[in-house]
Amino acid sequence: MELVTSLLKKNENKILLVVLDGLGDLPCKDGKTPLELANTPNLDKLVKESATGRHIPVEFGITPGSGPGHLGIFGYEPKKYTIGRGVLEALGVGLELKETDVAIRGNFATVEYKNGEVVVIDRRAGRIPTEENKKLIAYLSEHIKKIDDAEVILHSGMEHRFVVVFRFPYPVSEEVETINDTDPQVVGKSPLEPVGKGEFAEKVAKIAKKFVEKVAELLKDNKPANYALLRGFSVKPKMPTFEEKYGLKSACIATYPMYKGLASLVGMELIKFEGATIKDEIETLKKVWKDFDFVFLHIKKTDSYGEDGNYEAKVKIIEEFDSYLPELLSLKPAVLCITGDHSTPCKMKSHSWHPVPVLIKSPYVLGGLSERFTEREVIKGELGMFYAIHLMPMLLAHAGRLKKFGA
Amino acid sequence: MELVTSLLKKNENKILLVVLDGLGDLPCKDGKTPLELANTPNLDKLVKESATGRHIPVEFGITPGSGPGHLGIFGYEPKKYTIGRGVLEALGVGLELKETDVAIRGNFATVEYKNGEVVVIDRRAGRIPTEENKKLIAYLSEHIKKIDDAEVILHSGMEHRFVVVFRFPYPVSEEVETINDTDPQVVGKSPLEPVGKGEFAEKVAKIAKKFVEKVAELLKDNKPANYALLRGFSVKPKMPTFEEKYGLKSACIATYPMYKGLASLVGMELIKFEGATIKDEIETLKKVWKDFDFVFLHIKKTDSYGEDGNYEAKVKIIEEFDSYLPELLSLKPAVLCITGDHSTPCKMKSHSWHPVPVLIKSPYVLGGLSERFTEREVIKGELGMFYAIHLMPMLLAHAGRLKKFGA
Repeated sequence: MELVTSLLKKNENKILLVVLDGLGDLPCKDGKTPLELANTPNLDKLVKESATGRHIPVEFGITPGSGPGHLGIFGYEPKKYTIGRGVLEALGVGLELKETDVAIRGNFATVEYKNGEVVVIDRRAGRIPTEENKKLIAYLSEHIKKIDDAEVILHSGMEHRFVVVFRFPYPVSEEVETINDTDPQVVGKSPLEPVGKGEFAEKVAKIAKKFVEKVAELLKDNKPANYALLRGFSVKPKMPTFEEKYGLKSACIATYPMYKGLASLVGMELIKFEGATIKDEIETLKKVWKDFDFVFLHIKKTDSYGEDGNYEAKVKIIEEFDSYLPELLSLKPAVLCITGDHSTPCKMKSHSWHPVPVLIKSPYVLGGLSERFTEREVIKGELGMFYAIHLMPMLLAHAGRLKKFGA
Repeated sequence: MELVTSLLKKNENKILLVVLDGLGDLPCKDGKTPLELANTPNLDKLVKESATGRHIPVEFGITPGSGPGHLGIFGYEPKKYTIGRGVLEALGVGLELKETDVAIRGNFATVEYKNGEVVVIDRRAGRIPTEENKKLIAYLSEHIKKIDDAEVILHSGMEHRFVVVFRFPYPVSEEVETINDTDPQVVGKSPLEPVGKGEFAEKVAKIAKKFVEKVAELLKDNKPANYALLRGFSVKPKMPTFEEKYGLKSACIATYPMYKGLASLVGMELIKFEGATIKDEIETLKKVWKDFDFVFLHIKKTDSYGEDGNYEAKVKIIEEFDSYLPELLSLKPAVLCITGDHSTPCKMKSHSWHPVPVLIKSPYVLGGLSERFTEREVIKGELGMFYAIHLMPMLLAHAGRLKKFGA
């Protein structure tokens, strides 16, 4: 058993983990980062009585995807637990995956048939409306129920995205993760044929090929979505739940499928709610707060604006979050942690490897070391720079949920 | 062989390691920690020409007991080398443990016999005086010499505490560490029966049961100590000595059994002396300084006052230590290191996971980075934040006792 798990003790102290996705940034204007540019009176006050520092999501110089980024802050070694895109998407749309399932991310695409060749002309079928997607999935589900010994389960995602699960009558093997994506990544080329290494992977690749052929046949007269590209063949990784690992009854409040998927993978309860604003999320938090030991609240737009390179919008969303901070504090969490899953610098328009600011509010901190909650100020803080996987043990410690190790 | 051991070279440079137990703290008054509140003119001067930083005793968020705390600063991975309480106590009272010994911590207790049930009414027998304890142990030793094939060795500790060693005619197994404590932890309950997993552990558990029965019989008319509770069944861990690992002839100056026990476990010579003040310890140090390469000087009271939540007394003991600093420096150690084994924040009245200030005085430091030797100031220092197990290699390096690695 892991050291932390062996030292758990129960109490009533609640932990609130707020993840502002892609929070960390680089100078955008006048040498200042969005956190430095933002007007954040509430964070400014909070930071003075909090422990501060930075986490390294995976490893020095390594830029994490959303999966490794979140697994790290959840305390699961992201170099050990890898999550395929298919699994993430499946969990995100609410499919409960079993040990017998292979999950794949599908994209509706537009192809042309030239001299017997299939040529991709739009990898996203013009980002068809989600409603159109739902109709297509209903139609396909009716006509493709089983291929060889795999039950076929389809689920719509947003726009052109969908999930396909091949459910076998026996447990599946991780070797399916050797199967290549069929998406050629550029238009004007043919989709790739799925090929896997190992007996089971070969079998799944054949089923995938038949699936694509059936979709192409069923949608041949449809426009613009007349084809399916497959990505991220994967199986659910074997990992302990949050409850098993930390003894925490935990919930996730998030708006995007991927983050819900990640939370559900570690066994967090996904809280359903209407709306997608920070306000909606915080109202939801207030409702469920009493029912859980640990709540993971995910705010997406800091990352989205980072990806867009829109620092002004990133500043605004930080300010919006700041305005709700008093409401979070009014819940009196024993431990409040505010951080990101990785950095998404506006000038890079992508995730990056840069360490991510962390703030921990608890009675058991030194505090008084950072003037503001910014990339530069948190460097002065007491938490130093640490791997993300050490965050959860620290939150448990600050919540008084770990016994002493050894006599 | 470990890297450090493979690079050792001999010289005359002496290392003095001062451990102020439970040194690290949190704000106690006016937002200041005891180190910040204390008037420490000598440390203030020393810190400016020293390397500073913080060590993490075991792992982020993990609160160490005294065993793991000291093993870490001695450079023994505390997650690998675990020391049972029985072994610690046995070593602390000066018993030399062998490969054939099972060591157990005993507490004299008071029980009542109600309807054939044994009920604990005082787990510490009113903390009987140590003198009374010695008489009881002498009496028990006379009447319990052997149980089955185990020789029984008894030794008094302080107040209600004692040590029992079962010495077998053959090497013992670590499986005895599966045996539960018999202390029910609360009064009004019956003592627990010792149960172990594995053949040898079962055998030891049976001997322990017989031992408890004999003690109860022998002390049945004694008051208030009429029973024995047993804790921490353990065997001496297999580990290299300080001399083998670091090539250092080393000594320990400490007043409390547990710390002497820890030092003896790694093969340090325990220096006997009268008295228990810092002055007594430093007088002792002066006498033996020329005879050793390395001296570990342990000051207990910083921890005791932390455990009591008495920050004023903790401040005073820090000031007392500061007043003796010139005497330590007059010995001209090639390397002087001042640190703690863990933090014991007064507001928590317990050990904690917080990183511990470290100071290294040597001609080979940058210096000039911390204004004072305090939790907040050492964050700015050149040593950064590091796992405690890296301390000893750094002290050896500063003492010129490590060769270059590689060509």
